[in-house]
Amino acid sequence: MIAAMQTRKDSGIFTNRRRTVFGKARSDSGKKLGAVLISRPEDVAYLTGFTGEDSFLLIAGGKGWLLTDSRFTEQAQRECPGLEVFTRKGPMAEGVKEVSRQASLKTIAAQADHLTVNQNKALSKVLRRPLVPLNGLLTRLRGLKDRHEVAAIRRAIAIGEHALGTLIAKGRRAFVGRAERDVAAELEYLMRQGGAEKPAFETIVAAGPHGSMPHYRPGDTKIRPGDAVLIDWGAMVGGYAGDLTRVVFTGKISPQLFRIYDVVLKAQRAGIAALWPGKSCKSAHLAAKKVVEDAGYGDKFLHSLGHGLGRNVHEWPSLSWLSKDRLRAGMVVTAEPGIYLPDVGGVRIEDVVLVTPRGPKVLSAMSRSIKDMTLR
Amino acid sequence: MIAAMQTRKDSGIFTNRRRTVFGKARSDSGKKLGAVLISRPEDVAYLTGFTGEDSFLLIAGGKGWLLTDSRFTEQAQRECPGLEVFTRKGPMAEGVKEVSRQASLKTIAAQADHLTVNQNKALSKVLRRPLVPLNGLLTRLRGLKDRHEVAAIRRAIAIGEHALGTLIAKGRRAFVGRAERDVAAELEYLMRQGGAEKPAFETIVAAGPHGSMPHYRPGDTKIRPGDAVLIDWGAMVGGYAGDLTRVVFTGKISPQLFRIYDVVLKAQRAGIAALWPGKSCKSAHLAAKKVVEDAGYGDKFLHSLGHGLGRNVHEWPSLSWLSKDRLRAGMVVTAEPGIYLPDVGGVRIEDVVLVTPRGPKVLSAMSRSIKDMTLR
Repeated sequence: MIAAMQTRKDSGIFTNRRRTVFGKARSDSGKKLGAVLISRPEDVAYLTGFTGEDSFLLIAGGKGWLLTDSRFTEQAQRECPGLEVFTRKGPMAEGVKEVSRQASLKTIAAQADHLTVNQNKALSKVLRRPLVPLNGLLTRLRGLKDRHEVAAIRRAIAIGEHALGTLIAKGRRAFVGRAERDVAAELEYLMRQGGAEKPAFETIVAAGPHGSMPHYRPGDTKIRPGDAVLIDWGAMVGGYAGDLTRVVFTGKISPQLFRIYDVVLKAQRAGIAALWPGKSCKSAHLAAKKVVEDAGYGDKFLHSLGHGLGRNVHEWPSLSWLSKDRLRAGMVVTAEPGIYLPDVGGVRIEDVVLVTPRGPKVLSAMSRSIKDMTLR
Repeated sequence: MIAAMQTRKDSGIFTNRRRTVFGKARSDSGKKLGAVLISRPEDVAYLTGFTGEDSFLLIAGGKGWLLTDSRFTEQAQRECPGLEVFTRKGPMAEGVKEVSRQASLKTIAAQADHLTVNQNKALSKVLRRPLVPLNGLLTRLRGLKDRHEVAAIRRAIAIGEHALGTLIAKGRRAFVGRAERDVAAELEYLMRQGGAEKPAFETIVAAGPHGSMPHYRPGDTKIRPGDAVLIDWGAMVGGYAGDLTRVVFTGKISPQLFRIYDVVLKAQRAGIAALWPGKSCKSAHLAAKKVVEDAGYGDKFLHSLGHGLGRNVHEWPSLSWLSKDRLRAGMVVTAEPGIYLPDVGGVRIEDVVLVTPRGPKVLSAMSRSIKDMTLR
């Protein structure tokens, strides 16, 4: 079977990742850890290749246990040949207790940025000792993508671009007179046909004034001739997300929108140009923000320049005014400035950028020119 | 705008729900609570109608604050007319601190079954006092559906049924020779066209032996003549999920599958018949399990009879051998026994049931007969 073959080929990657996590957790905590408990589903997937749910991972050096339940036993055995699959019959805490007893695991570190207050309490109780808080280790590791991950993100982007490209090639008839939600549905279907597992997030198709809400949900509003249509979409492929935004014009663009489109495009260029290893994430945001401010729209740029992209649509680092992080080679981030004018509409242009030792490398290929985005 | 009109009509429901939560939190905790902090996104949506993300809700008696960020300010104001919208500029804990200072909120209860260890720490620090753990209150409230919620679940089910019905009406050509993932994609598109916001979960289309993995992900395997195809699918509509499973036959069914189909169907009937208020959730599971055991397949029924269904696909109560809960009128649950034979395939039949004072009421309407599920 395809799934099992893929896993066999890839299992070395997962083993290496688990060894790294265990080693770093030991050195970060300064304690003699017996094991590390991973509870966040995306982290479990990153470290195992497992695509199921409701499963925790215990790592102790080269050994690993996937604590799952009977719904996922067969799937876990196929997907994770290098792991012991433990099928729990009761609550997760009891499973952790059982495995740690069998393997004589004493001090266990756990994800304090994911484990709930109650889970922490239940685990501490059955293990009869507090868990060592593990803070942000996986977040930071996952923030630096290896070539397999960059390839997966590229595939996700390409499938997304092909889907919107197909719609745009159909021209106005694919937009004008149709409800926002119908355009979103067709775009998602095109991504699925292209090989996506699902949309990476709820597709935004916002016509005219709706574009002023950065996270608008597509509704029954029909797209009219002359509308600017903001589309924020992405495919989930092999567990990795794409995330782009384009504004499509169904007719002649108003001078006001033409102006802000130009400002946003220049802001994006300035933001992307600032994405060099060693520079601060904040400085990249400020580089884009300055362009918007200089044009007089500073208070209409309602969010940060962008965010890390990977298994989650929003992950570390944040390209925000609040960030204290520095950019590093291997980070994959979005660059998506926007200007939002209530009752008028909005423009956001979003692309995906790999930070490399030689500077920013844009992974998305779709045109950003008004001409190409104006439907025929 | 449609969204704003819907909210205005519904805002009384949300206000009432918030009052209930605050009152019950006070009486449950036995403390003089100043406010309740809601962090779980589905709970925030249940209590506000807000459809955005990354936002917490503070409730103090009749007053409520939605702590969001600038991406969602306009949307929150439109969707939640009865709430104060607080646009935080920094971390969530700082926002909670600011609102609680302005409104003189002292003791605050929070969701210990959702708040992470780190969030709990950060909040306790800025508030200079520990949070009162709120355990399962929203889970239990949301487990009992009002008529608006039952109507939403019915809509979700109807859209799902219509989508699969459309595929089945096309006959074998809609299945045979097509990849599992293509059938899943078309089914999802039909749900979107029918008015779904998205699939409620990753659609399962498992051909032949793949049916033995309860949570199989559809792949590139082509469906063959004579395959049993297990389909587990649901639409998300108005924030509520549908969740059904059917097995579709592309040709003549083998005697072995015919036999287990019959056992599963009888087990489902027995499980549904046990869904009366006052009976234990466990007893409903055991009623179905007994049928499977008596037929000699006890160890092949890998999961529980079902689960609560609402804003989450899996919510309280669980119809499991581990459950200590009793059924109550207003619960909406799935009834989905299954038998899984490795390397052969699986049969699961899933319907949605409302527990009423007069017993179980099946909300789904799709045929379960082998004849109707055999393609022409």
